[in-house]
Amino acid sequence: MKERDFIANIRKQFVGQSDLLLKGIGDDCAVFKGAEDLCWMITTDLLVENVHFNLEWHDAYLLGRKAVAVNLSDIAAMGGKPHFIAVSLALPPYLSDSWLKRWHDGVASMLQENHCLLIGGDIAGSALFTINIIALGSAHPDTVLYRSGAKTGDDIYVTGLLGTAAVGLEILQRNKNDDEKLSHFIRAHLDPQPQVMTGLSLAKSGLVSAMQDISDGVATDLSHICRESQVGAVLSDLMLPYHEDLPQLCETLHVSKNDMILSGGEDYQLIFTADARHRDKLAALSHQIQKPFFRIGEITSQAGKITLEENGLIKDINFKGFEHNS
Amino acid sequence: MKERDFIANIRKQFVGQSDLLLKGIGDDCAVFKGAEDLCWMITTDLLVENVHFNLEWHDAYLLGRKAVAVNLSDIAAMGGKPHFIAVSLALPPYLSDSWLKRWHDGVASMLQENHCLLIGGDIAGSALFTINIIALGSAHPDTVLYRSGAKTGDDIYVTGLLGTAAVGLEILQRNKNDDEKLSHFIRAHLDPQPQVMTGLSLAKSGLVSAMQDISDGVATDLSHICRESQVGAVLSDLMLPYHEDLPQLCETLHVSKNDMILSGGEDYQLIFTADARHRDKLAALSHQIQKPFFRIGEITSQAGKITLEENGLIKDINFKGFEHNS
Repeated sequence: MKERDFIANIRKQFVGQSDLLLKGIGDDCAVFKGAEDLCWMITTDLLVENVHFNLEWHDAYLLGRKAVAVNLSDIAAMGGKPHFIAVSLALPPYLSDSWLKRWHDGVASMLQENHCLLIGGDIAGSALFTINIIALGSAHPDTVLYRSGAKTGDDIYVTGLLGTAAVGLEILQRNKNDDEKLSHFIRAHLDPQPQVMTGLSLAKSGLVSAMQDISDGVATDLSHICRESQVGAVLSDLMLPYHEDLPQLCETLHVSKNDMILSGGEDYQLIFTADARHRDKLAALSHQIQKPFFRIGEITSQAGKITLEENGLIKDINFKGFEHNS
Repeated sequence: MKERDFIANIRKQFVGQSDLLLKGIGDDCAVFKGAEDLCWMITTDLLVENVHFNLEWHDAYLLGRKAVAVNLSDIAAMGGKPHFIAVSLALPPYLSDSWLKRWHDGVASMLQENHCLLIGGDIAGSALFTINIIALGSAHPDTVLYRSGAKTGDDIYVTGLLGTAAVGLEILQRNKNDDEKLSHFIRAHLDPQPQVMTGLSLAKSGLVSAMQDISDGVATDLSHICRESQVGAVLSDLMLPYHEDLPQLCETLHVSKNDMILSGGEDYQLIFTADARHRDKLAALSHQIQKPFFRIGEITSQAGKITLEENGLIKDINFKGFEHNS
């Protein structure tokens, strides 16, 4: 069963309401009540060796950083401020104490950069290295950004270049990591930066209608916004931002440029929607926080349909993102 | 490295404070602020196939129940009311969709019995079945019971029989599960009940100084209370409660009765301490909620030293509980 079918079944089976719950399954985080001016958000990410990471090219320190980053990215995606993480580790015998020390140093560095604390976890022996991290963040209940707020006619933006991490992974898989020119792409895969400050700024601006992070590729991640908002989307290939070296690299690597840009995962930028009347204000905010907002398309009324305008042709690109367990 | 050394290192490396954090690493749950009259508690448990469970004898439905139960037990251990869980699953190809459906039915049944909701999670493919569950619960900040509150002279109690689940596991490991007389022990291992109502009643009573659940055996779990409270403990073998069939069964199975009772894990009862002046009130509460509180010993001033009085002899029993990855 594919991940999305699996989750759809779970959503059907596990229904229920609670006075304390603001949002259950179906967004980057679940959101629950704290005080009147504070709600909590929680996310969890499972990382399995040889599925989500490869120890041949992922250094312990950077893997520790990334394991935390992908969770903080989910908090950023809802406009939250991350506070705490908990780490569960299934540890195989081939990881040495010094390797684990470096891994924890990486965890600590990402926590420090984001003013977060480790508050708990669990460990066990296992034949396979598996990491599960939880992140907890908070926000004012009025500023939380859900996937479900996109409206027909809204602009669609991304906060950074697309496909960079995916190309980096392709390079690593081909063992071509000795060229200095490629280090930007490799670094994007190995050491992604969660867009916490950008997410907070966008949430506080009041200009954004829906947001999520780009973990599985813009096509798949946009499809989540479309599903939860019951809308569609049209992207324009001329507006999709990517690194200037990416097209040439894709040729060298024999991969499709569009696959990398639309379906390449793990850029951990944010994708968000906003009323078209907010363009000037968003440009001002972009300038203020020195972070580019690339407008890549528009929300349409055709629920669930995502298309790409390419050379004047319209292509269906629903669910083109890769799924780890498909 | 043993689990306790590993966690001790983590506690040293990851220090820090937050206005929102009431308790970090070092208890059954981390505790963080909600409103003035509400704090949240969070726990996470990692279950690895062939380390924590064996699919040869653990039915999908009961394993789903148990995976939730062990987390709810941590909430119960602090006197909290559980509300939400999130489930991360690393799924190997040999688990069928119907097996997973039964597993989820088990999860749902344990959630329903405890009025809890599933609010999120993650899934991935893997070569080895691994489950990570998070539970979130709440309490009034004044009623939360920590491990750190035990005082010299306090009585020590447990809320149920000891060693039952451990003997059940020994039976299953020897494939002797066809005898109806053994089903009580087997059931204790396969389908433990989190002591949520008992934990809530004890917390609200105001009679308890420290509490935790019995997951790794009473010796190890009591040692956690002693470490966090900077006290010691003396247990009396005559006071330790166990099933009347247990001694004979231990002989048949060629296992030590004391090992089962003191070091056998997974009974998921509660162990708590209380001022000796509260004996009558605790007896009344026990009667009221129809749950036995067995007094098994006394807290002493010798920090970290746990002893057992057996036939008039004093034995040191520190850290005799089994550790999954030692």
